[in-house]
Amino acid sequence: MSRIPRDKSNDYTREAAARRRQFIEQATSSTLEHVGGYSFDPAILPGNIENFTGVAQMPLGFAGPMLVNGEYAQGEFYVPMATTEGTLVASYSRGMRLTSEAGGITTTVVDDAMQRSPVFVFDDARGARDFGLWITEQFGAIKAAAETTTRSGRLRNIEQYSASKMLYLRFNFTTGDAAGQNMCGKATYAACRWIVENYPRAIPRYYLSGNMDTDKKHSQLNTLHSRGKRVIAEATIPRALLQERMRTTPEAMYAARMASQLGGLMAGAVHNGVHPANGIASVFIATGQDEANVAESHASLVYAEITPAGDYYYSVTLPSLIVATYGGGTGLATQRECLEVLDCYGAGKARKLAEIIAATVLCGELSLGAAVVAEEWVSSHDDLGRNRP
Amino acid sequence: MSRIPRDKSNDYTREAAARRRQFIEQATSSTLEHVGGYSFDPAILPGNIENFTGVAQMPLGFAGPMLVNGEYAQGEFYVPMATTEGTLVASYSRGMRLTSEAGGITTTVVDDAMQRSPVFVFDDARGARDFGLWITEQFGAIKAAAETTTRSGRLRNIEQYSASKMLYLRFNFTTGDAAGQNMCGKATYAACRWIVENYPRAIPRYYLSGNMDTDKKHSQLNTLHSRGKRVIAEATIPRALLQERMRTTPEAMYAARMASQLGGLMAGAVHNGVHPANGIASVFIATGQDEANVAESHASLVYAEITPAGDYYYSVTLPSLIVATYGGGTGLATQRECLEVLDCYGAGKARKLAEIIAATVLCGELSLGAAVVAEEWVSSHDDLGRNRP
Amino acid sequence: MSRIPRDKSNDYTREAAARRRQFIEQATSSTLEHVGGYSFDPAILPGNIENFTGVAQMPLGFAGPMLVNGEYAQGEFYVPMATTEGTLVASYSRGMRLTSEAGGITTTVVDDAMQRSPVFVFDDARGARDFGLWITEQFGAIKAAAETTTRSGRLRNIEQYSASKMLYLRFNFTTGDAAGQNMCGKATYAACRWIVENYPRAIPRYYLSGNMDTDKKHSQLNTLHSRGKRVIAEATIPRALLQERMRTTPEAMYAARMASQLGGLMAGAVHNGVHPANGIASVFIATGQDEANVAESHASLVYAEITPAGDYYYSVTLPSLIVATYGGGTGLATQRECLEVLDCYGAGKARKLAEIIAATVLCGELSLGAAVVAEEWVSSHDDLGRNRP
Amino acid sequence: MSRIPRDKSNDYTREAAARRRQFIEQATSSTLEHVGGYSFDPAILPGNIENFTGVAQMPLGFAGPMLVNGEYAQGEFYVPMATTEGTLVASYSRGMRLTSEAGGITTTVVDDAMQRSPVFVFDDARGARDFGLWITEQFGAIKAAAETTTRSGRLRNIEQYSASKMLYLRFNFTTGDAAGQNMCGKATYAACRWIVENYPRAIPRYYLSGNMDTDKKHSQLNTLHSRGKRVIAEATIPRALLQERMRTTPEAMYAARMASQLGGLMAGAVHNGVHPANGIASVFIATGQDEANVAESHASLVYAEITPAGDYYYSVTLPSLIVATYGGGTGLATQRECLEVLDCYGAGKARKLAEIIAATVLCGELSLGAAVVAEEWVSSHDDLGRNRP
Repeated sequence: MSRIPRDKSNDYTREAAARRRQFIEQATSSTLEHVGGYSFDPAILPGNIENFTGVAQMPLGFAGPMLVNGEYAQGEFYVPMATTEGTLVASYSRGMRLTSEAGGITTTVVDDAMQRSPVFVFDDARGARDFGLWITEQFGAIKAAAETTTRSGRLRNIEQYSASKMLYLRFNFTTGDAAGQNMCGKATYAACRWIVENYPRAIPRYYLSGNMDTDKKHSQLNTLHSRGKRVIAEATIPRALLQERMRTTPEAMYAARMASQLGGLMAGAVHNGVHPANGIASVFIATGQDEANVAESHASLVYAEITPAGDYYYSVTLPSLIVATYGGGTGLATQRECLEVLDCYGAGKARKLAEIIAATVLCGELSLGAAVVAEEWVSSHDDLGRNRP
Repeated sequence: MSRIPRDKSNDYTREAAARRRQFIEQATSSTLEHVGGYSFDPAILPGNIENFTGVAQMPLGFAGPMLVNGEYAQGEFYVPMATTEGTLVASYSRGMRLTSEAGGITTTVVDDAMQRSPVFVFDDARGARDFGLWITEQFGAIKAAAETTTRSGRLRNIEQYSASKMLYLRFNFTTGDAAGQNMCGKATYAACRWIVENYPRAIPRYYLSGNMDTDKKHSQLNTLHSRGKRVIAEATIPRALLQERMRTTPEAMYAARMASQLGGLMAGAVHNGVHPANGIASVFIATGQDEANVAESHASLVYAEITPAGDYYYSVTLPSLIVATYGGGTGLATQRECLEVLDCYGAGKARKLAEIIAATVLCGELSLGAAVVAEEWVSSHDDLGRNRP
Repeated sequence: MSRIPRDKSNDYTREAAARRRQFIEQATSSTLEHVGGYSFDPAILPGNIENFTGVAQMPLGFAGPMLVNGEYAQGEFYVPMATTEGTLVASYSRGMRLTSEAGGITTTVVDDAMQRSPVFVFDDARGARDFGLWITEQFGAIKAAAETTTRSGRLRNIEQYSASKMLYLRFNFTTGDAAGQNMCGKATYAACRWIVENYPRAIPRYYLSGNMDTDKKHSQLNTLHSRGKRVIAEATIPRALLQERMRTTPEAMYAARMASQLGGLMAGAVHNGVHPANGIASVFIATGQDEANVAESHASLVYAEITPAGDYYYSVTLPSLIVATYGGGTGLATQRECLEVLDCYGAGKARKLAEIIAATVLCGELSLGAAVVAEEWVSSHDDLGRNRP
Repeated sequence: MSRIPRDKSNDYTREAAARRRQFIEQATSSTLEHVGGYSFDPAILPGNIENFTGVAQMPLGFAGPMLVNGEYAQGEFYVPMATTEGTLVASYSRGMRLTSEAGGITTTVVDDAMQRSPVFVFDDARGARDFGLWITEQFGAIKAAAETTTRSGRLRNIEQYSASKMLYLRFNFTTGDAAGQNMCGKATYAACRWIVENYPRAIPRYYLSGNMDTDKKHSQLNTLHSRGKRVIAEATIPRALLQERMRTTPEAMYAARMASQLGGLMAGAVHNGVHPANGIASVFIATGQDEANVAESHASLVYAEITPAGDYYYSVTLPSLIVATYGGGTGLATQRECLEVLDCYGAGKARKLAEIIAATVLCGELSLGAAVVAEEWVSSHDDLGRNRP
């Protein structure tokens, strides 16, 4: 088979895309009619994709309204969700109605940084340890070297982790309203170049990533020290409301949660929530986030209590939610529109979006949790899902 | 704010979607022009989304050709990838070229099942233990009860896990070419009803999920006992080819891999690969998979060796890759087209698709791994990525 | 420095030990008076130590009485604990008094097996997969080959785990009243020899352990599939008793447990208990268990509830408790005496000992848990501990 | 059964111990002859045990000599090991001979601190976040409050971890040559009292431990941020020596290590070493360390390489090795003698002991690793172990 055609000078055009569709169609005896059914000018695409051929059209619905009492997100929101999983939008909407009637969801961003984590390899552990001391001393110069490459990124601190003859550095950057992985990579690379040139001794080897970033995968380190936004959503659902809307009680919800939590612990699950990945993935796709960051972002720490008054306090902590309102896919056609529906497009909006997503996740946890307890899970999927027998 | 309008009798129409766009536009003073720019008839959508309003248009490119020597996937493939992350398609294509010139990628499906995991709560641990013995004895009847609900699903076996006064059962179903979560849920629910009715003693409580499925999240249990497909991709890259195409050597690649692996281990990363989530998420979106299953599917076990001949053997084991070629989002417009490009639409194709995705992941691991070693990672993102300073 | 003297023909004698003490004393200008202060005949030692020089004298106290309602352990027990940590015996005794007054501790052994886990390496993943099918077919013959080496061990089943071109087998043996690691090693080695000789194709490489046993270290696999005994201890403490003896309430204990559990989850702790290792290590040393097995045995799953009547239900599941009442160090002088105090020496007693240890762990968890809540933790260590400012 | 007799005024005497032996003997129809066979004056025991009744006599042998090129431990050492596991002393000795002939083991302490981790519970996440900012501001005052309780402990820094409405603080103390858990507990308690009194708002609840210490259990947090000493041992074994002494090659050792490492990763093992727990437990018991700290201390990160010259570089990183040369059980009779053999008793010796233990662990890893490869594992246990068929 031959290689997919490119046109160096004019590759992001409707024509180039059409040529590629034709090429694929001929090579595979298939048709790409709907893939070609996009509505925007491909000239906006450089930086987002190569070999542009068309689009995936992912069905999109809005859930809500959802009432958020955040520091950045305040008021009611209709949340755009792109998904192919039946029941999902309905289930999140159900949770949004519940929490809105309960007075809304309080959201709090408690940390905010993006990482790149190079590793430096020495002849022995003492070489690595000495290097670590020098890095601490030279923080100012390293910061200056890193920040030459970026207007908005700032090097906040460098964590150090030691093993064998290696020292792993974890650079933490504030990244404004971009997710910032590329910015961090570039700035850290500049810092590494400075380090290699200025360290008094030769450094045998180094790599720009030693996997402690931990890019595109979940890690306990992310849960401990955050990646992207660390954001917490909390709500207290009055007992009467839970009974009326969800046909269950705080006690029944809580007992199920405890059994589920023990199961997850025994399974070695990466978090004790139910399905944050559903809400996160569908809002990510709708709003132009990096869809692979679901891997990091789906981690959660759920904590619930029955209050002295008998109501149900429920909280979700997302320790590594990676979101942007600038750069990446945020400026694409439908993605920008969905961000604008949330008033989350552009500068100064990333924490607002993080709050909205955390609140969304909480609604989904409550809704599915209640469905399991009320034995409505299967019947709702029967009504709204595909995959019938 | 008011609730999003629905039309019970006629909700999956262009008109209903337009009404919802108008409603959202008015409520939020925004426009949803491109969201409305879809090319298919919404009548295909029931079972995939509620509150259908339009689409997310995710840019789509093809990578390849990629040569696969699978048991189901054989020959060259152009792989559809929907993404907003610049460099991604180019990087995977680079890996596909490398592996194709190396003779292709061998793929092997070694396990295949989907799970639902109810938990039964007793008065004490002995009650739970006795129940477990009974479940083993009654497997035939439980299987019969479960399979009344499904044409294609088969209950293969039931794992048992014990903690405190609970017994967690993990039902394993073969699901044909559907991902099968709903099928499993429904069949397990029927089995649970049978169990509750037929167990000689009263069962104080049970829940259809005790979180040992572990739906929409990574777990060590998935890595051990698989979820969806367990599929392995292997390739051996000749030394000379690696040098020519990637400007590096097996030794340099391997040394970086070992440093990275130790970093991941120290970080408590869920896998020792680099970025399987990128390839998986983009193919999932393109082909109508459940995008939230990236959470489970991104786990991997990478194992590499320098062969006695000095070449580079590289393998990726995906222990919990959840894919479908039937049901879910596979029949939607662009999604079906992309599956057809791979000859992976419909019955009898799920393992083929699993092999193609595993091979794709391997290409991405080699390409990014080489870029880190050759210090081309930052420069390639500078050329192809967004987020400039 | 020279090598420590041995006497091949007569090494386990008081004289040989004295010569070695003299040797060490001269080489290091030290004295080994108390090390030489042992009371037994070294002739019992072959199989337990090499270079026998004397003993560590570890202080030993008894905690209790503790009331156990087990299937093997029934009645009151004085539990021997060897430790150098002040407060430990007193704290466990306090918990034993509490649980005894509450009616005792119910204990249940739910699984019982020991493992050895060889790995077989093939040319590719398909070779490993084919091998796995053959292993399943040949189970009877493999079992026969393994059991030629042992009178009491029985091969129960073989788990299979697949990654890359390797197949890991986890042999599960019942081992009577021995811990059985050596027995398993020897039997599995015989099985491997048989496999290598009888498999129709050549097996490139294999190792007797591929680390999935997971000997002398904690693993999630142990938590899921047990190692040694899986034993559960349960007790319900009346509210009034908790208030009287511990100066706290079920609600206060429970709230502290939930905060602690979330902290452990965030830390990536291997279990959600407080300090099972304390009780386990001290009973292990007193009764001649393999002290390094604390690594596996300290894992636990704690689950608590406030009952509808307002009492405190508390359970500890030990998924990988490795104990013996026969073989290993169980026949040594003080070790045997301590086992005999528990009526746990020799054949038919291993599950009884497992139940006693699980009950002991539960007492320690309750006692320390209450001390933290009642703010008596520091003051009790001030009274009973060392390490003053 | 009645309670074990105490004598408030005179409890740590030979007479009181004898009375307790008699009591246990009568209550359980057993004899405690050897338990009473101790050689020291019980007057040294307050602070180490309650209900002192006698001793466990654990067989003790010396391994070595072992050549250490540490910063604190320099020269040859005979290492005291208390164990009941046959083969252990011989196997470690074998590794010590190998590494000594290879030029010795380089050891490096890279971190050193002990922790206590209180948790503070607020009304909501914002309350917890505000509290965290205040803690950072007040570090000086908190440090002063903590250090009022200790002569030798110093508060180095306070880590903060946030989840739900809780803030977990992890206090890091340098503790001189004591292990320091009690010291940390007392100092942190004083700090907490100061915090509660001085924080401008009411703090609803706090607990002295929120389980992020993570006392007496392994955690990923320990692996990342150390607990006790973080110490690294390294050695390079010449190829010819490995062949001569161990009947194997660097390539064979390395291949087995890689297969084993993948198995451990798949199993969710807490570390990628083989059996550090063996060496650690036996030296801990011999030298009066807290035997339950094997739970934390057995974690390791092993990293090996074949050098360009074809030799075998091997390193063990122990991230959470808890050792003392002062306080705890270090001053007891045999324990002190064993420390003195190592010249590790008393002030200024804790890092030396940490280096010796890390070097010991490395010897055991190499020895067992080689035995597995050379297929001598079973035969050596047959020669030296107990548990014959």
